[in-house]
Amino acid sequence: MSDEEIHRGLEDIVVGETNLSYIDGQQGELVIGGYPLSELATNATFEETLFLLYNDDLPTEAELEDFSSELAQYRSVPEGTMDVVRAAAVAESSPMDTLRMATASLSLDMDGEEPHRDTLVLVSRLPTIVAAYWRLRDGDEPVAPREDLSHAANYLYMLTGEEPDPAEVRGLETYLNTVVDHGFNASTFTGRTIVSTDSDLYSAVTGAIGALKGPLHGGAPGPVLDMLLEIQASGDVEGYIRETLESGERLMGFGHRVYEVRDPRAEVLSTAAETFYEAGGDSAFFELAMAVEDASVDLLAEYKPGLNLETNVEFYTAVLLHGAGIPKALFTPTFAIARAGGWTAHCLQQLDDNRLIRPRASYVGERDRTWTPLEDRQ
Amino acid sequence: MSDEEIHRGLEDIVVGETNLSYIDGQQGELVIGGYPLSELATNATFEETLFLLYNDDLPTEAELEDFSSELAQYRSVPEGTMDVVRAAAVAESSPMDTLRMATASLSLDMDGEEPHRDTLVLVSRLPTIVAAYWRLRDGDEPVAPREDLSHAANYLYMLTGEEPDPAEVRGLETYLNTVVDHGFNASTFTGRTIVSTDSDLYSAVTGAIGALKGPLHGGAPGPVLDMLLEIQASGDVEGYIRETLESGERLMGFGHRVYEVRDPRAEVLSTAAETFYEAGGDSAFFELAMAVEDASVDLLAEYKPGLNLETNVEFYTAVLLHGAGIPKALFTPTFAIARAGGWTAHCLQQLDDNRLIRPRASYVGERDRTWTPLEDRQ
Repeated sequence: MSDEEIHRGLEDIVVGETNLSYIDGQQGELVIGGYPLSELATNATFEETLFLLYNDDLPTEAELEDFSSELAQYRSVPEGTMDVVRAAAVAESSPMDTLRMATASLSLDMDGEEPHRDTLVLVSRLPTIVAAYWRLRDGDEPVAPREDLSHAANYLYMLTGEEPDPAEVRGLETYLNTVVDHGFNASTFTGRTIVSTDSDLYSAVTGAIGALKGPLHGGAPGPVLDMLLEIQASGDVEGYIRETLESGERLMGFGHRVYEVRDPRAEVLSTAAETFYEAGGDSAFFELAMAVEDASVDLLAEYKPGLNLETNVEFYTAVLLHGAGIPKALFTPTFAIARAGGWTAHCLQQLDDNRLIRPRASYVGERDRTWTPLEDRQ
Repeated sequence: MSDEEIHRGLEDIVVGETNLSYIDGQQGELVIGGYPLSELATNATFEETLFLLYNDDLPTEAELEDFSSELAQYRSVPEGTMDVVRAAAVAESSPMDTLRMATASLSLDMDGEEPHRDTLVLVSRLPTIVAAYWRLRDGDEPVAPREDLSHAANYLYMLTGEEPDPAEVRGLETYLNTVVDHGFNASTFTGRTIVSTDSDLYSAVTGAIGALKGPLHGGAPGPVLDMLLEIQASGDVEGYIRETLESGERLMGFGHRVYEVRDPRAEVLSTAAETFYEAGGDSAFFELAMAVEDASVDLLAEYKPGLNLETNVEFYTAVLLHGAGIPKALFTPTFAIARAGGWTAHCLQQLDDNRLIRPRASYVGERDRTWTPLEDRQ
């Protein structure tokens, strides 16, 4: 054993500076590109948020028009990428496995040598992959992207083949803005580590998708919806939660390593979901979600005192995305579609002032074994 | 600005424990699986080294036979993966881009739920991808893998369609053993960060390949060979090196962030190269390499005093792999084929005692911007 201090999760280690997002876990505060989350999330289109991350400023009308049309022009994916999506749909690969496979191939018609362009190519194309996969899994042909729709509207359009309702678009955009960036989380840090070797954006975003795939990072909003639908069917909010906690299972949608109070993203998403559901008519589902949240927070305090398990981003993600028409299986890929903005902005910052990320290990093995020929081994 | 200490490259940060490899950068010492590198690299087959990393012990004859045949049985890649390789060859994608794309798709016939099996699938299949790509780039059809050959011999066989010379196999195995693991380097750390979210081995190895692609990590042995061939053509060792250094260019094959003395891998690879070239007849090329090393170390001390730029692993990698018949364009993919052993062993260790890797960022932006509607922006 070694007496070196080991930082297994790097919790207290600051790896770099950023102006992209600021998290205060004690206060439950999140700042995106200099704006408090609540100031940005419901006002900005996703294109405005992306521009803000890349330029540290909101675009003028002319800048936004240029940026939006450049972003839209990359939406079609290479034929080889679409072949990968088809193979993955046939193989019944999971949505995140498919997104990893297809994203890895997005450099087929690009050289990976222009980080600023590659950034837009990646952000532009992720929805095309996810929507094509979903339609193929359902036995439908993919719907080609439309350049005249916004990023969020085009994603919904490619899923259904129909122009989406403005309220669905606004709900989705608020979600995309809310989760676009969140410090040096595991997937963002993966992307930064990859480009720190002077590698390319396609490699970085592919790696980040692989990290986001893990249930400890991006994988829980689907189970939250399952839980809400089960509780809706049973009608017994408290009974369901008590049973879950007494059986030792994790209650999905609560607790976050960084936040000790209610995740500020939950606040923004719950307000957006309330607006959305009240306009759309299914306010009963939203009221159920609020009742589940209230009961869960109370019962978590009773069953797990002192742990401060407050509502996290995944809880109202499930509620809002379900309302906006995103299938449950695509919740995590939709998270990736949003976070691609943060990943790419962080990668550009890493490349701009780079240092190879290479930590150390503490060695706990032997040092002087001597070779034994195969025939002499016991 | 913040007054938090920032560890940009994580140089002094210990992220975890391992018994896979031990690096002493001051003494120029490298231990792999408890064996000093020189004890292991030239004695073990690559299968023995892999078994050692996964089991912390060398295999008995029976264990080795079982392990080797399990590893060999996964060599054929899914059809969808081969389609990706074909698309990449047509698109003239780089070898490492192709390896990233194709590896990302290796889960097409697997569920990614069995880390120990997925480990063997990945290690087994990387050579199949690289060899198929190389043959397609040359206008030839891929050669199907043979289960009766060793991992190294089968790789060489798939490249040429001919059974390789035993000296080439031994040279390649010594190389693979030498670079199989090296602490928490950037690609290994990428893989560990990805599985720390409880993601899968396909995602982790794909991400690691993306990191290894970067010239600051895995990208330099090709340029070393270019340099040696140029010097061989010109015949002027000292003149070439002085010119390179005086023009401010980097001399490839020297200097490493971790080693302050000669990289111990350079020692092992140079001895293996000497054996190989003396037996094979082209001892002039090896002698040239030694002359270039000697002159480079002297001239680096003269032009860059105090920097301790000693021979690194890439220098004799170029010499040995060139001799063993690996095309220069495949040096970095061959590095990946070797390091896949370390990546997967590290991922298994991470999963075995996991903690999500999530460092912190220091925020240097504004916090209280207020929203300006689009039409009011200047």
